[in-house]
Amino acid sequence: MTVKIVGFEVSPGVLSVMMCLHELGVPYQIENPASWQALKDEDFIANKHPFGKIPVLCDGDYTITETRAICRYLVSKYQGKYNDTILIPNDVHKAGLVDQYISYEYSYYTPPVAKLVVEEVFHKTSNPELVETSQKEIDKVLNVYEKLLNGKEYLNGEFSLADVLHISFTHFIFSSTKYADWWNKKPNVKQWWDRISNRDCWKKCVEKIKF
Amino acid sequence: MTVKIVGFEVSPGVLSVMMCLHELGVPYQIENPASWQALKDEDFIANKHPFGKIPVLCDGDYTITETRAICRYLVSKYQGKYNDTILIPNDVHKAGLVDQYISYEYSYYTPPVAKLVVEEVFHKTSNPELVETSQKEIDKVLNVYEKLLNGKEYLNGEFSLADVLHISFTHFIFSSTKYADWWNKKPNVKQWWDRISNRDCWKKCVEKIKF
Ligand SMILES: N[C@@H](CCC(=O)N[C@@H](CS)C(=O)NCC(=O)O)C(=O)O
Ligand SMILES: N[C@@H](CCC(=O)N[C@@H](CS)C(=O)NCC(=O)O)C(=O)O
Repeated sequence: MTVKIVGFEVSPGVLSVMMCLHELGVPYQIENPASWQALKDEDFIANKHPFGKIPVLCDGDYTITETRAICRYLVSKYQGKYNDTILIPNDVHKAGLVDQYISYEYSYYTPPVAKLVVEEVFHKTSNPELVETSQKEIDKVLNVYEKLLNGKEYLNGEFSLADVLHISFTHFIFSSTKYADWWNKKPNVKQWWDRISNRDCWKKCVEKIKF
Repeated sequence: MTVKIVGFEVSPGVLSVMMCLHELGVPYQIENPASWQALKDEDFIANKHPFGKIPVLCDGDYTITETRAICRYLVSKYQGKYNDTILIPNDVHKAGLVDQYISYEYSYYTPPVAKLVVEEVFHKTSNPELVETSQKEIDKVLNVYEKLLNGKEYLNGEFSLADVLHISFTHFIFSSTKYADWWNKKPNVKQWWDRISNRDCWKKCVEKIKF
């Protein structure tokens, strides 16, 4: 039975799960809900996501929600089954640090980036104050990343799920805003971004984005 | 070599890691930084946490940061070594749902609870507008939990790391604010809270809280 993502191919969470599936080589299908509004329907809340969010993953009878939990589940279940790509290493110490970098992503990196992307790319509004605050916040975070990436090709040294989870929101900064320069002017961050965003698996996801 | 937590015994993150260690039966020590300000020192940023936060865990030469990543690391490394308590089941499907509930905690439950606790308990200020918004937000979240906990003793059926991670911030609501009623008036939530907050391991953590 094919793994099924419930969601829209413009949602950064859905795109992260897609990327994870591509990297692991797992075949999947996507089921679009009737509308964004439908995520708040009784049926969706009761059977898909109790907080009315996407992505949701259905794997046969098993349903799991929340982007990072879904990705970790997919790695536990499918890593090594279809190809040799390692998103979370078996070594407990290395795996711990992948988890740590995922927490940096969810705690410090994604919140300010997401706020800006939602405003400018998804809502197509513009708020100079938000841009100013975002720039300051994002610059601080990227300064930390610039140091973290010193002498490393990827956050955890080797490519991992932590890198994957940084791609989708950042993609919209590069494709649909004029702020790519905030990233590009930091050499380690720029090289890292080029490296991860040029992966074939990500290019396949980009082709599927539907606004 | 004893596992060492770097942090203060009032920080909810530190308390979560302590609880996790108690549950797993792992002996540990705590090292207090010189001050809260010291978390932003060059040395702390370079060697402990790049974003200047606690908790940090040192396990011999290995250093890992971020509450949830630390806890998952501790489970991977020590679960079953000192006692029989299971915080993350081996079964990939059950483990996935523990992870999902941890994401509900970090995404929906803790943010509004933390905002209120930081304001009223840690900063000892009071802001009627914040209380009003918090009440609405927290009530919405607790209504979802009330349903999630229907017919279950714990979020994932059996006790798990997901329950552990809900305790520390909520503790301060019950011990140091007048808002316990928001929880107590929902029967499933109340029973769940009584069940998890009365665990011996949590009582041992509470004894160590230092304001
Ligand atoms: N914590 C969730 C957040 C998911 C989320 O916020 N998804 C957005 C789309 S990217 C959504 O469902 N928005 C609809 C809504 O909130 O009504 C995750 O990481 O998967
Ligand atoms: N994402 C981190 C957050 C840690 C955090 O915010 N810790 C607080 C204490 S509970 C802290 O270090 N605050 C000091 C500061 O931000 O300067 C985690 O989950 O561990």
